Amino acid sequence: MAQIQTLAVKSDCREVLINITRSVTNAVTASGVTDGVAYVYCPHTTGAITIQEAADPDVALDISHTLTGLVPLDAGYRHAEGNSDAHVKASLVGSSDMIPIDGGRLCLGTWQGIFFCEFDGPRNRKVLIKVLEG
Amino acid sequence: MAQIQTLAVKSDCREVLINITRSVTNAVTASGVTDGVAYVYCPHTTGAITIQEAADPDVALDISHTLTGLVPLDAGYRHAEGNSDAHVKASLVGSSDMIPIDGGRLCLGTWQGIFFCEFDGPRNRKVLIKVLEG
Amino acid sequence: MAQIQTLAVKSDCREVLINITRSVTNAVTASGVTDGVAYVYCPHTTGAITIQEAADPDVALDISHTLTGLVPLDAGYRHAEGNSDAHVKASLVGSSDMIPIDGGRLCLGTWQGIFFCEFDGPRNRKVLIKVLEG
Repeated sequence: MAQIQTLAVKSDCREVLINITRSVTNAVTASGVTDGVAYVYCPHTTGAITIQEAADPDVALDISHTLTGLVPLDAGYRHAEGNSDAHVKASLVGSSDMIPIDGGRLCLGTWQGIFFCEFDGPRNRKVLIKVLEG
Repeated sequence: MAQIQTLAVKSDCREVLINITRSVTNAVTASGVTDGVAYVYCPHTTGAITIQEAADPDVALDISHTLTGLVPLDAGYRHAEGNSDAHVKASLVGSSDMIPIDGGRLCLGTWQGIFFCEFDGPRNRKVLIKVLEG
Repeated sequence: MAQIQTLAVKSDCREVLINITRSVTNAVTASGVTDGVAYVYCPHTTGAITIQEAADPDVALDISHTLTGLVPLDAGYRHAEGNSDAHVKASLVGSSDMIPIDGGRLCLGTWQGIFFCEFDGPRNRKVLIKVLEG
């Protein structure tokens, strides 16, 4: 059994996609699991996980800007904390992702990286990594 | 091996997010699994699963209202049953979610709860819960 | 341990949802796993996986058209390859899905099918299928 590992992720603005691929790769190596599945889980309700192109940072910016266009900061929301947009974006993108593991390697495609999506920063966040063998 | 468990969920309006956290917690306890992963799966094409803030019910209302703004009930859809909006919302939110289990406890964040999203109610629905050990 | 299986999927237009349910079912049978979880993973950053109604092909068309309305092809994106819309759609729909397996059978609902979503075709794509027992 592989223990859950916790990453610390720090955002320095309200909305940003942070590439955590290397940390997830290291966690999988540390788990000792060579075949199975890696799960990346966000325990926050205004953050999310996505797997996207990591080669050109403009892709992450386009995603962030497009989401803000679709779900504006102010739109007559009921929730009084002023961050309802962040909650909606988090539900659209999703709180977790999985990646198959083969021969000790994450089966990411050529252009794929794993991103923590901050929608209500700046904040100190945690990301959980769980590995199942099989 | 933990058997799949089935929850009955009843919605009483067309669109509503229903907090099923307690039922999922009970299913994990019943499984006897102390370390692994819990999956919450919606076998319906006009419903979905999301993990979101459970403290303030206004967050769930804001999510529902925002989705309806993005994907209106009537928009010249081809599907003749009058619920295409619900299908689109279901694909945006997603049919399942996973939560790591540590020491018999779901690793939900402080503010997180698990919600069944009804997009074409009122209906009687099922949610499947599967637990993997490891 | 069940080896990862790879499906070849060919799209013949820019945007299309392709039903891969039969191939996933065959992969689960080939794995020999009778109880566990099947994961369907897209290793591409302009494609995605969704579980949706497979009975009426108009549902898939409505989803594709609605996504294009929400995330237009041209919207002043920064990424210079002209396919930022496809990246955004991929993050909204998600790179993978899971389905519980019970008695050798995928626990899909009556109307559910598994779809590869092409957002930047036509292309030759791969979809990975991983099965965990338990």
